[in-house]
Amino acid sequence: MIEMENITKITYPGSKKIYMQGSVFPDIKVGMRQVTLTPTVTVNENGEKQYQENPPVTLYDTSGAFGDENQTVDLKKGLPRLREQWILDRGGVEQLPEVTSDYGKKRLADKSLDSLRFEHIRLPYRAKKGSQISQMYYAKQGIITPEMEYVSIRENMDCKALGIETQITPEFVCKEVAEGRAVIPANINHPEAEPMIIGKNFLVKINTNIGNSATSSSIEEEVEKAVWSCKWGGDTLMDLSTGNNIHETREWIIRNCPVPVGTVPIYQALEKTNGDADKLDWEIYKDTLIEQCEQGVDYFTIHAGIRLKNVHLADNRVCGIVSRGGSIMSKWCLVHNQESFLYEHFDEICDILAQYDVAVSLGDGLRPGCTADACDAAQYAELDTMGELVEHAWKKNVQAFIEGPGHVPMHRIKENMDREIEKCHNAPFYTLGPLVTDIAPGYDHITSAIGAAQIGWFGTAMLCYVTPKEHLALPNKEDVRNGVVSYKIAAHAADLAKGHPGAFIRDNALSKARYDFRWKDQFNLSLDPERALEYFKAGGHTEGEYCTMCGPNFCAAKLSHDLKKCGK
Amino acid sequence: MIEMENITKITYPGSKKIYMQGSVFPDIKVGMRQVTLTPTVTVNENGEKQYQENPPVTLYDTSGAFGDENQTVDLKKGLPRLREQWILDRGGVEQLPEVTSDYGKKRLADKSLDSLRFEHIRLPYRAKKGSQISQMYYAKQGIITPEMEYVSIRENMDCKALGIETQITPEFVCKEVAEGRAVIPANINHPEAEPMIIGKNFLVKINTNIGNSATSSSIEEEVEKAVWSCKWGGDTLMDLSTGNNIHETREWIIRNCPVPVGTVPIYQALEKTNGDADKLDWEIYKDTLIEQCEQGVDYFTIHAGIRLKNVHLADNRVCGIVSRGGSIMSKWCLVHNQESFLYEHFDEICDILAQYDVAVSLGDGLRPGCTADACDAAQYAELDTMGELVEHAWKKNVQAFIEGPGHVPMHRIKENMDREIEKCHNAPFYTLGPLVTDIAPGYDHITSAIGAAQIGWFGTAMLCYVTPKEHLALPNKEDVRNGVVSYKIAAHAADLAKGHPGAFIRDNALSKARYDFRWKDQFNLSLDPERALEYFKAGGHTEGEYCTMCGPNFCAAKLSHDLKKCGK
Repeated sequence: MIEMENITKITYPGSKKIYMQGSVFPDIKVGMRQVTLTPTVTVNENGEKQYQENPPVTLYDTSGAFGDENQTVDLKKGLPRLREQWILDRGGVEQLPEVTSDYGKKRLADKSLDSLRFEHIRLPYRAKKGSQISQMYYAKQGIITPEMEYVSIRENMDCKALGIETQITPEFVCKEVAEGRAVIPANINHPEAEPMIIGKNFLVKINTNIGNSATSSSIEEEVEKAVWSCKWGGDTLMDLSTGNNIHETREWIIRNCPVPVGTVPIYQALEKTNGDADKLDWEIYKDTLIEQCEQGVDYFTIHAGIRLKNVHLADNRVCGIVSRGGSIMSKWCLVHNQESFLYEHFDEICDILAQYDVAVSLGDGLRPGCTADACDAAQYAELDTMGELVEHAWKKNVQAFIEGPGHVPMHRIKENMDREIEKCHNAPFYTLGPLVTDIAPGYDHITSAIGAAQIGWFGTAMLCYVTPKEHLALPNKEDVRNGVVSYKIAAHAADLAKGHPGAFIRDNALSKARYDFRWKDQFNLSLDPERALEYFKAGGHTEGEYCTMCGPNFCAAKLSHDLKKCGK
Repeated sequence: MIEMENITKITYPGSKKIYMQGSVFPDIKVGMRQVTLTPTVTVNENGEKQYQENPPVTLYDTSGAFGDENQTVDLKKGLPRLREQWILDRGGVEQLPEVTSDYGKKRLADKSLDSLRFEHIRLPYRAKKGSQISQMYYAKQGIITPEMEYVSIRENMDCKALGIETQITPEFVCKEVAEGRAVIPANINHPEAEPMIIGKNFLVKINTNIGNSATSSSIEEEVEKAVWSCKWGGDTLMDLSTGNNIHETREWIIRNCPVPVGTVPIYQALEKTNGDADKLDWEIYKDTLIEQCEQGVDYFTIHAGIRLKNVHLADNRVCGIVSRGGSIMSKWCLVHNQESFLYEHFDEICDILAQYDVAVSLGDGLRPGCTADACDAAQYAELDTMGELVEHAWKKNVQAFIEGPGHVPMHRIKENMDREIEKCHNAPFYTLGPLVTDIAPGYDHITSAIGAAQIGWFGTAMLCYVTPKEHLALPNKEDVRNGVVSYKIAAHAADLAKGHPGAFIRDNALSKARYDFRWKDQFNLSLDPERALEYFKAGGHTEGEYCTMCGPNFCAAKLSHDLKKCGK
């Protein structure tokens, strides 16, 4: 029996959940986090305290129902199915009488798995024959969906209330999705997910990876990591499990995940051939796609950009091929001396994905694994193929984005972004870092956050996090926290540099709290209030007009306050 | 009695100290760290193992005699006086019959301090009346000093042996110093320091701050932190002590510090007025300068750029004045309604510094303390004044650099660098970060490393490190380690992006080791071999052709190796 009692609440100090209502769709309720602040206290000439209110700050929130003190999540039942009625109201879908994939059927029939199984599995939805149901399809028709209005409200936080100009209207979202510049990952079988948008004209998003491997991690641990990732601000979650019971683990994760879930289906396909890449084929892969579409995976990383003729381009690299999917598919191509079945069947793949509105993330199987290999012929040949494939996806109304490096020295980061925009026709870019040097194993969350912040500023829409354990071992919970917070820093720094409407509100409110010695407010507005408070207390403090960095007599902020008095 | 038995060795796994000889000055021996690597092992078609040698890698090394297994450092006697004979050979200096400063005399006469005192204090050197003895003076005459050849060898690592083109010759160093684009901080009373150079055409350097405060830290702890900082790669060290026995603590640090030491003399001056900024005056400050010049401080942060007329420009900032020195001097100006004595006496300051070859670091007292205050009138007015002052310093043959922000959003970082180059006539820039967002207390080593890497790439010569405790508390040893390594990442990423000759050698050697599964070699080449090994072992590994990230069957690197075989 799966026990998960302790991970059903996400709390943030000094914060409460608020909801903003839709106007095109008045029943839309977009959850946000509101941080309440204390007043600024000053002393006037008569020695009397004066209080000046500080307005609350509204933050983008990824905690879903877990972060709402008025809701109780029962992990065994899963999250509320927020989007289900919207999907049904639009029509064009049908609930299937049974799961369609062979593997899904087999797992369901296996009684020995009952103790592991999520108890409330529903039958999957799928587009009716001849129906188009993806967000991109609706966008191309100029139809604004509830998802589109939801993300427009979410992106603006409280800009409108504060009179800050913003171009992000539901109409704008619709146009960005229609033209492929943005993606709303929204499988109709993951109605629990709160809509979010990935595109260069929106807030920079971050993805976190979880997943067990052959030797480690239980279902409980993976669900706990998923909730943990949402707590720290992960915008999407990739389940990269390669060990046992992948199918059952994924069900638990999706049913309890308030953010879109991505996978790399080739990993599970390889499990089905007992790790033998040579035995992979289109049928095994296709069945895996359908299995996962029907569970509710929101986007698939598919390494269809690898072409037989290009594999050899990586021969003389320092680090060869470092993408798991990339090395699997490259080996397959060489062993069979044949074009990859992912490339050959890409249109068919898109036909499947379109039926569930699963987005495709074109995997960069030939991404550079060290700075010496950056921007080489192998990487750029694959990018060209991705540019060709993304147009196929769009033709089928499948939303798509493009994965990117990896390891790139700083002076070549912009080149990567510009080339992606040009070759892939403005499809959103989704990068892993990039790491800006290779020499810091144990600190690669930092090495890569440096690159991530820059490429985010230049236009990358989503950053895949890296933890301190990168290159070394599987991350634990503390590593996930460090990785997510590092990437929230990179993403927010990019939002500031891009001038995203309202991004500066949080910085300015926190800085004012810092200057006012409103320590708790400062911490409550920070990316990791618990860590900040812990360090502050380690200095022996709980409040007061100084900290142990400078001591009471050397505090610049304190002197700066005195200055205001003596200057008048 | 001061006990310091446990901090006299710095070791790095798989490494040994080597020395490179000078050619202009054949008695010069420049210490470097050589990392020995194991061979690459492959298996040929007959199943036989083939061994391919990997040449050792030579790294820039800041560990001094502590890192030489053939030397034993006795902290009570101090480090070998490497530069003393060079200084004497050049002539123009005299050893004084006693220390000159009143405060220095007073401390020396105080018997109650005997138990704290460094035992082997020497009498200070000073330029003879009418003599010029600074590196800048010699450079202007076209005279190459041993220090200049030393840094040219040090900067090139093993480029010459590897046939990598480099412009860094002793003549080039001489020209850069003569024209003010680079600084070799080298007080004649700190002959223990190994020469190093700060300038945009050289490796990006990092500074670490240590120092006690009113409530914490012993002399032993501060010396230990100094050695610790050198271990991780700190290029210079600022002693920012504000507590008790500053004078004695500083002596211990300087005598045992193989890298240049900087201070902010106004801190100690303020201790002498019991923390009352209003009571500061030129005489107290001047005596403090002389006291520290004669102890061997290599550079002083002097906030002479604050002008009475500009203080009010910070009035409407979100965070006011966040520099300690800046707030002290601003308050002084307002209380006395008078131009700052640092500005008024700047030429006299330079006359003092020139006698010992102490460099001036023009402190940015009005640096922005949050992103909202970046690039404002206050900051830029001070920069203009610095540009005026740096020319005064150069006229007196005083080497100079310029301190910079602080907090700056990414899209305004380049503007800061370009403006400094223009207004300050190419004097080296020395920045604190900058932090690219304000919202991450507890993680500001990361927030600021993002900005530091970029500004380093754009031309900043030295980066002042930030620890995770920034804004919260005094750093402990682990914080210092995290701060230094984060900044080594930023500096090295900048070196790669700038194309510093040979910077890529370490990356490529480490990446090749990674691809070869030569785990120990990978770790030994990394910035923190101990951390990397610790994380690797935490995954349950000691060696083998995979790690726990992907497990044995899913290792891309392993598959990539197989690929090479099947592709042939």
